[in-house]
Amino acid sequence: MSQKIPVGILGATGIVGQRFVQMLEHHPWFEVAWLAASDRSEGRAYGEAARWRLKTAIPERVAKMVVSPAKPEGAPKVIFAALDASIAAEMEPAFAQAGCAVVSNSSALRMAKDVPLVIPEVNAGHVKLIETQAWRKKSGGFVVTNPNCSAIGLVLALAPLDKQFGLETVMAVTMQAVSGAGYPGVASLDILGNVIPYIAKEEEKMEEETLKLLGKLNGAGIVPGSFAMSAQCNRVAVEDGHTESVSVRMKKKAKAEEIISAWNAYTAEPQKMRLPSAPAQPVVYLEADDRPQPRFDADRGAGMTTTVGRLRPCKVLDWKFTVLSHNTIRGAAGAALLNAELLKAQGYLG
Amino acid sequence: MSQKIPVGILGATGIVGQRFVQMLEHHPWFEVAWLAASDRSEGRAYGEAARWRLKTAIPERVAKMVVSPAKPEGAPKVIFAALDASIAAEMEPAFAQAGCAVVSNSSALRMAKDVPLVIPEVNAGHVKLIETQAWRKKSGGFVVTNPNCSAIGLVLALAPLDKQFGLETVMAVTMQAVSGAGYPGVASLDILGNVIPYIAKEEEKMEEETLKLLGKLNGAGIVPGSFAMSAQCNRVAVEDGHTESVSVRMKKKAKAEEIISAWNAYTAEPQKMRLPSAPAQPVVYLEADDRPQPRFDADRGAGMTTTVGRLRPCKVLDWKFTVLSHNTIRGAAGAALLNAELLKAQGYLG
Amino acid sequence: MSQKIPVGILGATGIVGQRFVQMLEHHPWFEVAWLAASDRSEGRAYGEAARWRLKTAIPERVAKMVVSPAKPEGAPKVIFAALDASIAAEMEPAFAQAGCAVVSNSSALRMAKDVPLVIPEVNAGHVKLIETQAWRKKSGGFVVTNPNCSAIGLVLALAPLDKQFGLETVMAVTMQAVSGAGYPGVASLDILGNVIPYIAKEEEKMEEETLKLLGKLNGAGIVPGSFAMSAQCNRVAVEDGHTESVSVRMKKKAKAEEIISAWNAYTAEPQKMRLPSAPAQPVVYLEADDRPQPRFDADRGAGMTTTVGRLRPCKVLDWKFTVLSHNTIRGAAGAALLNAELLKAQGYLG
Amino acid sequence: MSQKIPVGILGATGIVGQRFVQMLEHHPWFEVAWLAASDRSEGRAYGEAARWRLKTAIPERVAKMVVSPAKPEGAPKVIFAALDASIAAEMEPAFAQAGCAVVSNSSALRMAKDVPLVIPEVNAGHVKLIETQAWRKKSGGFVVTNPNCSAIGLVLALAPLDKQFGLETVMAVTMQAVSGAGYPGVASLDILGNVIPYIAKEEEKMEEETLKLLGKLNGAGIVPGSFAMSAQCNRVAVEDGHTESVSVRMKKKAKAEEIISAWNAYTAEPQKMRLPSAPAQPVVYLEADDRPQPRFDADRGAGMTTTVGRLRPCKVLDWKFTVLSHNTIRGAAGAALLNAELLKAQGYLG
Repeated sequence: MSQKIPVGILGATGIVGQRFVQMLEHHPWFEVAWLAASDRSEGRAYGEAARWRLKTAIPERVAKMVVSPAKPEGAPKVIFAALDASIAAEMEPAFAQAGCAVVSNSSALRMAKDVPLVIPEVNAGHVKLIETQAWRKKSGGFVVTNPNCSAIGLVLALAPLDKQFGLETVMAVTMQAVSGAGYPGVASLDILGNVIPYIAKEEEKMEEETLKLLGKLNGAGIVPGSFAMSAQCNRVAVEDGHTESVSVRMKKKAKAEEIISAWNAYTAEPQKMRLPSAPAQPVVYLEADDRPQPRFDADRGAGMTTTVGRLRPCKVLDWKFTVLSHNTIRGAAGAALLNAELLKAQGYLG
Repeated sequence: MSQKIPVGILGATGIVGQRFVQMLEHHPWFEVAWLAASDRSEGRAYGEAARWRLKTAIPERVAKMVVSPAKPEGAPKVIFAALDASIAAEMEPAFAQAGCAVVSNSSALRMAKDVPLVIPEVNAGHVKLIETQAWRKKSGGFVVTNPNCSAIGLVLALAPLDKQFGLETVMAVTMQAVSGAGYPGVASLDILGNVIPYIAKEEEKMEEETLKLLGKLNGAGIVPGSFAMSAQCNRVAVEDGHTESVSVRMKKKAKAEEIISAWNAYTAEPQKMRLPSAPAQPVVYLEADDRPQPRFDADRGAGMTTTVGRLRPCKVLDWKFTVLSHNTIRGAAGAALLNAELLKAQGYLG
Repeated sequence: MSQKIPVGILGATGIVGQRFVQMLEHHPWFEVAWLAASDRSEGRAYGEAARWRLKTAIPERVAKMVVSPAKPEGAPKVIFAALDASIAAEMEPAFAQAGCAVVSNSSALRMAKDVPLVIPEVNAGHVKLIETQAWRKKSGGFVVTNPNCSAIGLVLALAPLDKQFGLETVMAVTMQAVSGAGYPGVASLDILGNVIPYIAKEEEKMEEETLKLLGKLNGAGIVPGSFAMSAQCNRVAVEDGHTESVSVRMKKKAKAEEIISAWNAYTAEPQKMRLPSAPAQPVVYLEADDRPQPRFDADRGAGMTTTVGRLRPCKVLDWKFTVLSHNTIRGAAGAALLNAELLKAQGYLG
Repeated sequence: MSQKIPVGILGATGIVGQRFVQMLEHHPWFEVAWLAASDRSEGRAYGEAARWRLKTAIPERVAKMVVSPAKPEGAPKVIFAALDASIAAEMEPAFAQAGCAVVSNSSALRMAKDVPLVIPEVNAGHVKLIETQAWRKKSGGFVVTNPNCSAIGLVLALAPLDKQFGLETVMAVTMQAVSGAGYPGVASLDILGNVIPYIAKEEEKMEEETLKLLGKLNGAGIVPGSFAMSAQCNRVAVEDGHTESVSVRMKKKAKAEEIISAWNAYTAEPQKMRLPSAPAQPVVYLEADDRPQPRFDADRGAGMTTTVGRLRPCKVLDWKFTVLSHNTIRGAAGAALLNAELLKAQGYLG
């Protein structure tokens, strides 16, 4: 009999839900024991309810599992949530209230004062905010969130710079993959041969989440990072991998080789703790003129490594560079999974 | 017998050369009388030498014309040049030396002190720089250039702002169409499902050309614009139309409606003179949340109108917005054609 | 005051509905006087209700029109219908019953015994089937349909061959554009970098409609064509234009030049009657090795011309060739419009 | 010291050459010891000479190897060849003459009377044709080839049918990936949003190679299969994976389940011998309505499994179905590698 921790997935049939199923298939610590989705899917075998959109085959064991009602009764104590924000706003608190550890990819509670927004390599300490949650006090349940798919790659690239040189100003323009919009998501008639210069609420999320992630835990809350931050978000005809053109000004002036070295040398708790989904190198600088590129670099480190390239001086701020991150792995399911691994390592999952 | 001015096209078989042929087919003032391309094409019928890549049919009359050697002997006095920079650097001076008016789309001479770099709606007065050219004095020939395909849309959007409010800082990130790289240009294996965060020399061109275009004619030279300017250039899987995410800081603070009005109301010499290829409105602001988009907006004003959208406050500079411009029409052949029309209207074409 | 015939559009907000609006903007005979769509759109301005997905601007007059309830009361007597089959099955009879001439693009009634399925260049005579309709007898109303977007290009290419040489066997494999699935239609995650070898019910439609179109009117019904017909349908990452690889065996053996001549010389009623939307040449053979191609050839004849290329011997049947047709113009809205023009010319529209 | 057989790669910098490098990185029997490419690459480190276009990283050891002159002197005795046909026609005989086992992916010698054209699962016995080669007799060297990338998937799907039911007629229409044209290969301006209904010499290759592959070894030659075969080839905007719409007539009538069972149960020498690159199942039938699809199925069996789907009756022949095969793995480098493994197992590599 398995010694693994049983986990549930809320929103299991969507693209991120599928990534959870995929990434948990051979996980050493966790095992999918429960799946929930919309009413439409309830009671059906997962393999029929989900329109599987990943290149690896749907795990047979999970394909046969029956989709449960999305209610805490009967659900395991560890829940991965991949819900639309409007649904998450009601459902995640209900599961936390019922004593579940909710490891969420949704935007609903990310900016709540008592909810940690965490990238384990960046701000593992923020997890302590859990202790301020009313749910935690009452039932032991809690909610931990990971950032938006466009914020996470950026922040992984910014964290080493902020730590060593201190960020003053950040400007980012994204070129985001269609998988970030879920399935069916972006209509082909909208994106073939096209760029859409708009993603609803994305710029706001990127700006506020970046500041919270690079903020400091101060008693019962996070003091956001004090740098100026502006984002512009575009959708492009790419399947997976968000590319970002970034400019930064830093408090302490740095040479190119110092910056590159800050990225390549960066490791943190997940690497030290050898968390199963942690990439050996969270940030890798690519020397080639024309990299990173989504088709060739998004899968680095099993999709958990953020790649950076094209560091060069900026005539307005100090430096400009390109960041790439896999949006449904490092930017969603993998982000939550690494959060859960961190929680387990810290003793929060019992 | 035609009363039109006979013109020649250097580099006639490439993508921009084809656009010249297309745009000149029914032109009221000019008529294609001579075509030159590489040695490989010389002596062949144009219709066979050119791999026609445009949606409209190749004009029959031109298809039958024989490709001439790329030498001034026998060439008409008005020459449109669509050459690679390395070839243009030698060939354009040779034609100017021989008395030709060379209206060039190449980058070779754009930044030369005595060569006007012109967008008729922006800096028509710079044309006077012609008079300082040695060729002009000797043979009457001269060279006039238009900017890079990524600079031209940006500058059309910036000019009304600079004029009314004074630019202080400009940051632009481009998402450029593959036709900007010519034919065969970008390999499909490089761009399908991908973004390439690098276009050789493009950022340098955008930065320096923008400053020259928005500079002031001062005696025998141009004093470049004094604002700070930074560009990042990316290639995306779009056929035609360069999209740009732009942020600006201006000397005089402006409200959104003032900026939009500055764009929509902007007209200049080409509109006043009713030049045949001048769009009624050089810059149009689109109100929809998610526009401009290359597939739907690049062809506005027969490809000569720059569209702008998504004006919103920027947390680092003052304002951010999206610019779109057709890269082989307004950004190349149409740019040169409008320059030629301006020259004709000013009496420079005899 | 306009002397044009007022027409209504059922399903006006969809992709085909939008094509109707676009193609009717400057129509010499018809004028959009009424628009209906789903309940969701009712009562809203068309410009807000429709997510306009065409490259030309939405006609201002129509954008301001209010979307009516989809009921015959208050509707004009000529109705273009662009409805989903399940809705059309109920709604088209209701409008015919109420005395309307329903010119339908839907599949619902195409195969009904008393409903003409018409391509004016192919089987204009089938229109007479109207007289057998009960609606016609009762209220004067009737339904006329045009074929599926994948059948119409094929049949335009087959008709000249059937007429001159007699078809015996036809095999067609399609590569269909995403616009054929409407909007939002095909999800970008399904089609980017992909081929989908399945379109629900499409092969059945192609096979049976082709036989009905090339059948003979015999009293109160159509005797279908007697040749064998097999279709395979695929979806590809193309915006507009269905490409088909076709093989045929014919009763009378023909030389390549005879076949090409049969295509290029083909004209019929619409050309003789000079119907406004009839292309000068319904079928054009392209000599180039690698044509037709959707990006370059779908718009021929304003999207109403079918292009054919690559005629060469087939080692199984007699000949093989490639057919291309614009799927939302010739294959949908333009097809219905040409049918309406034929009906008008034949006196069926009063 | 390695006990592996040292192998060389001719045409090592191209897309197929890169696949050889990738697939040989951890091969249990073979080890890359020598690389050759065009004069331009000679003397440079492979990592610099090759524009690496694969998603996995270039193997470090090979990246540092220096590209050798493309001459037999100093080359290993086992050579994988990925050359253009015109170059292969001269170079492959020269290496065979010098005593090398040339395992070729080129089309140059495929149809030569004494050269085996082999898919190990289909016609392993044809390898014996080596013994009739003059090179073999003189120096021990020989040439073995694998089929064109579009023929190989088709033939893997046909072989089980031919064996059990006997093929009478085959019609295939392909939708081929751009990687099949090498790098830079297909220009993005040619294929974005497009279908190209022509690939030079591809249809001829498919037709004649299919017949040779399914032919019988008869003394010193191959008696080609006696069925009728017709192919139509198209290029689509897909990176990897050729999709084919196929119709067949068979001598012995079969039920759907018999055909599906013939595919799923099919194994041959490579499976029995457990050759390292042999997929467990060479042909897999997918039950879903809309599969196989290149994005989701091309990588099955590490790219060595051919997937089949959509079996349904054909109104002209007996059955129609869709075939998908990875064109640069099973269709090129993997094909040659499996041939080399077969040769090794049969004792031909010393």
